[in-house]
Amino acid sequence: MPKTGGSSKKKALASAAPRQENGGWKRGLAVFDFVLRLGALGAALGAAAAMGTSDETLPFFTQFFQFEASYDDLPTFQFFLVAMGIVGGYLVLSLPFSIVCIVRSTAVGIRLLLIILDTVALTLATSAAGAAAAIVYLAHSGNSGTNWLAICDQFGDFCQKVSGAVVGSFIAVFLMMFLILLSAFAIRKSH
Amino acid sequence: MPKTGGSSKKKALASAAPRQENGGWKRGLAVFDFVLRLGALGAALGAAAAMGTSDETLPFFTQFFQFEASYDDLPTFQFFLVAMGIVGGYLVLSLPFSIVCIVRSTAVGIRLLLIILDTVALTLATSAAGAAAAIVYLAHSGNSGTNWLAICDQFGDFCQKVSGAVVGSFIAVFLMMFLILLSAFAIRKSH
Repeated sequence: MPKTGGSSKKKALASAAPRQENGGWKRGLAVFDFVLRLGALGAALGAAAAMGTSDETLPFFTQFFQFEASYDDLPTFQFFLVAMGIVGGYLVLSLPFSIVCIVRSTAVGIRLLLIILDTVALTLATSAAGAAAAIVYLAHSGNSGTNWLAICDQFGDFCQKVSGAVVGSFIAVFLMMFLILLSAFAIRKSH
Repeated sequence: MPKTGGSSKKKALASAAPRQENGGWKRGLAVFDFVLRLGALGAALGAAAAMGTSDETLPFFTQFFQFEASYDDLPTFQFFLVAMGIVGGYLVLSLPFSIVCIVRSTAVGIRLLLIILDTVALTLATSAAGAAAAIVYLAHSGNSGTNWLAICDQFGDFCQKVSGAVVGSFIAVFLMMFLILLSAFAIRKSH
C-alpha cells in the first residue's frame, strides 16, 4: 500500500509539472489579451471621438445659407459613430471578464463567450470601417462616372478628421482580429 | 499481475466510451462546418458574379457620349469584386481541409489553421460588403449635404444587380461568422 501511494504521488508530481507550465503559458496569453483589448478600446474610442468632433464651417457665407460640413450630413458616418460607440462599450464591459481569465486561467467557458462576442464586435467594426473608408475615398477623389464631386478641396479639416477616424477604426479592427486568433489559441491550449 | 491487467483494461474501456461520444459530436460539427463553408462559397461567388455582370447602357445617347454604368466606374465595386473573388477562392481551397477534419476528428492543428484563415477572410469580406453597401446606399438616396445625386433613377437595373451583390456578400459574411464560432466550439471540445 505505501508503495502504491508513493507511485501515485510521483505520478501526481509528474502530471503537475506540465500543467503548471501550461498554466504559465495561458496566463501570459491572458495578460496579452487584456493589453490588446485596451489597445483596441483606445483605437475605437479615438475613432469615435475624431468622427464625433468633425465639423467645419467655412469662413464665408451667402445671404441664404452657410457652408458647413459635419458627420451628421452623411448617414454612413452616423452609422460609423454608433458602431464604434457600441464596440467601445463592449470592449469596456469585456475587460472584467479578461481579468477573470488572467486570475483563473482554467475558465474556458468565459473564453468561449468572449470569442463569440469578439467575433460579432469585429464584424460590426469592420463593416463600419469599410463603409466610412468608401465614403472618405469618394470625398477625397470624387467620381466622374456618377458625377459625384470631391468635397475635400473645400472642407480640408473635415476630411482630415474623418480620415483619421477611419485609420483609427482599422487599427481597432486589426487588434480585434489578433484578439480572436489569440483566444482560439488559448482555447486550444487549455485542456 | 493479472488483476492489474484486468483493471487497466477496464479503465481503457471506460475511457474509450466518452471519447467515442466526443468523436461523434466533433464529426457532426465538422460536417456542419463543411455545409456552412459550401453555403458561404455559393453566396460569395454569387455576389461576385452579380457584381461582375452589372453594367447597363441607357437606350439613348448624345453625339459625344453614351450613358453607361458599370462596376468599373466605381473603385469600391472593383475592390468588392476582387475581395469576393479572393474569399471565394480561399473557401474552395479550404474545402479539402474541412473534409480532413470530418475524416480525422482529432486534427486540431488543421482546425486552428482554418480558424485563423477564416478570421482573415471574414474581415476582408466584411470590409468589402460594408464599403459596397455605403456606395449602394448613396446611389439609391444620394446626399444633399455634399451634392451627390442619386443615380438609381437612371440606372435601375444596375442598381438592382449591385444591391443583390451586397445582399449576397452579407449572407456570406454571416455564414463565415457562424463558421468561426463553430470552429471555436469544436476546438474547445477536442481534448
